[in-house]
Amino acid sequence: MDSSGKQPVVVPENLRALYAPVAQELQETEELLRRELSSDHPFVDQLVKHGFRLGGKRLRPALVLLSGLACGGLRPEHRTLAAMVELIHTATLIHDDVLDEATVRRHLDTINARWDNETSILLGDYLFAKAMCLAGSLEDPFAIRLISQTTQRVCKGELRQVEGRGDFGLTEDCYFDIIGGKTAALTSCCCEVGAYYAGASPETCRRLADYGRDLGIAFQIADDVLDLTGNETVVGKSLGTDLAKQKATLPLIRLLDAVDDPQRQQLVAILSRSDNHRQEALRPWFERYQAISYARQKAGRFSQQAVEQLSTLSATVALDSLRGLTDFVIARQQ
Amino acid sequence: MDSSGKQPVVVPENLRALYAPVAQELQETEELLRRELSSDHPFVDQLVKHGFRLGGKRLRPALVLLSGLACGGLRPEHRTLAAMVELIHTATLIHDDVLDEATVRRHLDTINARWDNETSILLGDYLFAKAMCLAGSLEDPFAIRLISQTTQRVCKGELRQVEGRGDFGLTEDCYFDIIGGKTAALTSCCCEVGAYYAGASPETCRRLADYGRDLGIAFQIADDVLDLTGNETVVGKSLGTDLAKQKATLPLIRLLDAVDDPQRQQLVAILSRSDNHRQEALRPWFERYQAISYARQKAGRFSQQAVEQLSTLSATVALDSLRGLTDFVIARQQ
Repeated sequence: MDSSGKQPVVVPENLRALYAPVAQELQETEELLRRELSSDHPFVDQLVKHGFRLGGKRLRPALVLLSGLACGGLRPEHRTLAAMVELIHTATLIHDDVLDEATVRRHLDTINARWDNETSILLGDYLFAKAMCLAGSLEDPFAIRLISQTTQRVCKGELRQVEGRGDFGLTEDCYFDIIGGKTAALTSCCCEVGAYYAGASPETCRRLADYGRDLGIAFQIADDVLDLTGNETVVGKSLGTDLAKQKATLPLIRLLDAVDDPQRQQLVAILSRSDNHRQEALRPWFERYQAISYARQKAGRFSQQAVEQLSTLSATVALDSLRGLTDFVIARQQ
Repeated sequence: MDSSGKQPVVVPENLRALYAPVAQELQETEELLRRELSSDHPFVDQLVKHGFRLGGKRLRPALVLLSGLACGGLRPEHRTLAAMVELIHTATLIHDDVLDEATVRRHLDTINARWDNETSILLGDYLFAKAMCLAGSLEDPFAIRLISQTTQRVCKGELRQVEGRGDFGLTEDCYFDIIGGKTAALTSCCCEVGAYYAGASPETCRRLADYGRDLGIAFQIADDVLDLTGNETVVGKSLGTDLAKQKATLPLIRLLDAVDDPQRQQLVAILSRSDNHRQEALRPWFERYQAISYARQKAGRFSQQAVEQLSTLSATVALDSLRGLTDFVIARQQ
């Protein structure tokens, strides 16, 4: 498996169309990331180049750039910010893969699978530090302040998720609270910094932050559904890890709410099994109680809410892409 | 074991005397840390309060404050900086304990022993983010820039150490390169920011940075010697982890340089053993080749070099403490 980082990051066709208005800036962001993610020490260089390709879709840099373009136009800071959010995203992915004991991501070995957990922890830390260096290089400290607060919220969400493992009494509210931190905080930050450094009004910055949050929530619900229903070859990452880690996500929370006590006990028995057939065992339950479609509907509602946040922006190609992304996140198969 | 964080952090008597010139500011730093390390979420709150007490000696905050006082006087920024470096130090400790599979630190359970590795990874990330928030709250971005570069160097040093595991051909130069990153980069940063925010000249800032680096190197050599020769009850943390992880530190590097090939093969055989008696098996070797005393001499030389960096500072009680610390780091038993 090539980890030289030379091979270009593959962005799905449908996404590339949405990224078109900022294609040039995304390319410059890739170059910036490539420069940032090289090291004079061979081992570190090999690691960062591998890490560079784990991020994949580049959704977060695109959110920074599209938000900036939709809110008044791009400045040089936007490329730095785009690279910064991708570094933070990649750092969290690398640490997540340790948490989830995942072995494949974007059709590549995860760092913990190819090297070990220790390397993953340190590489994640290294990329966090790199991201902070980029943020610190900007004149206006708004970015470094928002991004460090955001990173805190992400970690807090993840910590609460770890705490919630094996808790099959987790409520929908807790679930939304957790994903609001671990996923939506960063997508919200991407859109807010994009708008802010484009010189948008505080009101517009707030609306973009809300757009990013709702988009992130829709994205995460879809991601959790994929983890239960997706095909590893298509999705290109380890799946079923939520069940394996007894992480209650929306479909499961819905299902457990819908059943009666004896059925609930049957379900908990299935969930507590250590074999790898939980997924098949649960499939008929999900269908019978339409728990998957319930989760998809919820994702649809957040995606709709995200679109509404954009209502005050004047018509641009960037705005069309931001709208288009709200469909993409709930329709995606990878 | 109490992890409420209410119990005050215990600073050894000999250190408390050296901290005296900044005792008041250290107390305020503790209060600031206590405020920062509390959370509205019970689980997170319990974790950060436990983490708060793992840092222990508060050497790094003291370096910030003493350097500031010795270089022109303290400003409000110094308390923020002191809290920031302790947060970063604590974050690295928590991640190190995962790397070293350590179970005890400062006579307390480590996070990974009491909770698990996942919690340790996320808590470390959370504290990094907190530290960046503090740095970002300062007007002058010097701190956030230096600290993010420093964190990068720390991670790089740790990554190289992970790479060097089981490599009994590690040279002294590599060893100094590694500890120059993983330990000395942060102590150097502490002294440099302390001097900078006191309004010191670039030349003085550089000298303080060098003082902190040499002090950190001496400290780490002494730490590595303690890991081989110390008593866990006195030191209050897991020891022997370097041998267990096949980490070649200075005494071992010296020993392997000193012996002939057949002896070297005997040593590698001992080091490759999986039992817990490597330490006893090696003790006569270390004595015969005076490898421990060689390491102690090296530590002494760096400690002396550190003192020389202070020659241009005018006489103050803070300067006396900075000098005193160079003796402390090589004499310490904990």
